[in-house]
Amino acid sequence: MGRWASLSEKSRQELLQARAFLAAVAEPPAQALARFVAERGARAAVDAILRKRAPAPVLAEVEARRGEVSGEQLLRAGDAAGLRLLIPEGPEWPAEAFAELAGAREVDLPDVAEPLALWVRGRAELAEVAEQAVGVVGARAASGYGEHVAAEFGHDLAQAGFTVVSGAAYGIDGAAHRGALSAGGRTVAFLACGADVDYPAGHSRLLRAIADQGVVVSEYPPGTPPRKHRFLVRNRLIAAMGQATVVVEAGARSGAANTANTADLLGRPVLAVPGPVTSQNSVGCHSMVRSGQAVLVTRAAEVVELLSPLGVHPAEAIAGRSRATDRLHPDARRVYDALTGMVSAADVELARDCGLPLKRVRAVLPELELDGFARRTEGGWSPVAT
Amino acid sequence: MGRWASLSEKSRQELLQARAFLAAVAEPPAQALARFVAERGARAAVDAILRKRAPAPVLAEVEARRGEVSGEQLLRAGDAAGLRLLIPEGPEWPAEAFAELAGAREVDLPDVAEPLALWVRGRAELAEVAEQAVGVVGARAASGYGEHVAAEFGHDLAQAGFTVVSGAAYGIDGAAHRGALSAGGRTVAFLACGADVDYPAGHSRLLRAIADQGVVVSEYPPGTPPRKHRFLVRNRLIAAMGQATVVVEAGARSGAANTANTADLLGRPVLAVPGPVTSQNSVGCHSMVRSGQAVLVTRAAEVVELLSPLGVHPAEAIAGRSRATDRLHPDARRVYDALTGMVSAADVELARDCGLPLKRVRAVLPELELDGFARRTEGGWSPVAT
Repeated sequence: MGRWASLSEKSRQELLQARAFLAAVAEPPAQALARFVAERGARAAVDAILRKRAPAPVLAEVEARRGEVSGEQLLRAGDAAGLRLLIPEGPEWPAEAFAELAGAREVDLPDVAEPLALWVRGRAELAEVAEQAVGVVGARAASGYGEHVAAEFGHDLAQAGFTVVSGAAYGIDGAAHRGALSAGGRTVAFLACGADVDYPAGHSRLLRAIADQGVVVSEYPPGTPPRKHRFLVRNRLIAAMGQATVVVEAGARSGAANTANTADLLGRPVLAVPGPVTSQNSVGCHSMVRSGQAVLVTRAAEVVELLSPLGVHPAEAIAGRSRATDRLHPDARRVYDALTGMVSAADVELARDCGLPLKRVRAVLPELELDGFARRTEGGWSPVAT
Repeated sequence: MGRWASLSEKSRQELLQARAFLAAVAEPPAQALARFVAERGARAAVDAILRKRAPAPVLAEVEARRGEVSGEQLLRAGDAAGLRLLIPEGPEWPAEAFAELAGAREVDLPDVAEPLALWVRGRAELAEVAEQAVGVVGARAASGYGEHVAAEFGHDLAQAGFTVVSGAAYGIDGAAHRGALSAGGRTVAFLACGADVDYPAGHSRLLRAIADQGVVVSEYPPGTPPRKHRFLVRNRLIAAMGQATVVVEAGARSGAANTANTADLLGRPVLAVPGPVTSQNSVGCHSMVRSGQAVLVTRAAEVVELLSPLGVHPAEAIAGRSRATDRLHPDARRVYDALTGMVSAADVELARDCGLPLKRVRAVLPELELDGFARRTEGGWSPVAT
């Protein structure tokens, strides 16, 4: 980025055009092309492709679209649609989040590549919002329970200063974005179509709201329609962007499970929210916990705790309500238990009932009286309800 | 037990009387007394106690009741109530299940002791039903969800040949017993009062049914009323009797959590059923899974699998429904995805849309046609819905 500042406006424009071309000319994740661009640089790669002087695997990836794509036209189309183009050479690029995808860190992922560029709609700076981000994903056909929980996680994570990353789909995704928005927090939607395409159509207002408070992002050129396989390809970006991925509801086989898998392979913690075992919507979450792939989480505070430097957010013990008798000595509690089973009792009877020596019972009873658990009666002792 | 067969009727009667006395003379778990009896034998221990010649800790445990208890009277009372007395020297004693409580195997449990005897109501042989047994425990104030799940586990475990062990309380316990009964299976209830006491009163019919198909068991003498601390003491027997303990619903602090703790300390697997994170009834289960104390389980088959010798019950993969397009090559799926986004398309358009080389698209389309996913049209190709 220091380099970016030193570049002439013309060089910048050339880089943007080259990247716009590269991101469009092959269907992501175009691994041969991504490797070729990393080796040769964007502008040299474009030249080589146009002259058909790239390695065969690269030429195969670009063959179908090579003659059709113009970086200049794409930049104009993006501009008209209110999109800007982020590129690895420029500002705002979430290089840290994409380190594994880019191959900077070794991961066992055969099928990924860093995006060649990202089209972005919205105000927030992507690199900045990526600094503290959590993916929240799940089923489209979510239950009311799932949507409620996703909205709670979205809200509470945003309130804790985390960016909520998801895919803008119906169900869990939408609820997570809405939760973040309702907390006045930041949220990022990665789309499986152009960042200017309102998909799903029913989420066009939601997508506008996300762009207002965060960003809508896509590696697909403006106007690209969604395709099934693009959702899976897109999922790797959600997985990479979050420091952890929370799966709220997921069937046995689902896009969310795919995102979780990728997050896992990228070395990011996967967290799964449990639900009723009678619900098909939670089968995937339970299965991830059972296999050890995911850690069970029940609320956003547990996610925050997991992602916080040690000592910053001390573990909250899940403590039950304390009872009035908690502070009593076990013997005193035994005497009190026995007492509550009777209307009135002599100390000898109490000793027999609870099996403690009479002397001990006689020592304990006045203590119970002082603490308000017992009172003296004509027949001996009676319990005081606590 | 070989020894039991060789004993005279008089010796047997003396042993039973001695054990009836010992089980009643101190409030369980009477650790000093249990140790003393293990060292000296039951009859010698009774003699020593009556002559006040036992160690001080033993005398403290028996002081309050020493003068009140008669083994002979207890046996008569048990007989009148339809109970029989099981003792470690006799048949039916679940020695294997109680090995840790008896100190035969080293465990880090400060507060346990093997029962000095057990009062039993019902037909089944306790040692036999203990051979394959699972504890199913949980909250009294269970949700409808929890009771439903407990009944399913009870039913399916019983059907798989496991004895369902629980505490006959309202809520989860009752549902688990009922599930086992409905499968015609065996079930054991450990009570925190005499085995002849119908507690809770609303479960008197259930207790009769349990005795018909299994056994109702207690270490407390006939007629003993329930006391709060007795539930916790009783829980160690449920934990010991099951090869594993399933917790269906449990608050943050609960008797079920106590049973789970004991099972854990006894080296038995603890299994917890998840539920909605919005339900207070599942807080304890989720917390056990999060801490690593419990393994998450969603159905009885997973419990059976865990307890089965390797290879006998192969792990069932949780597989989702397979889709018609699953068996297609990824390239063919990509072409099919592109096709489904269009009414009709030429091969060149398809190649551009999915970013595959035209030659590859042209090779794939006839395959898709053969498999019934695409058909030729005037304009080129159309998708066939699957």
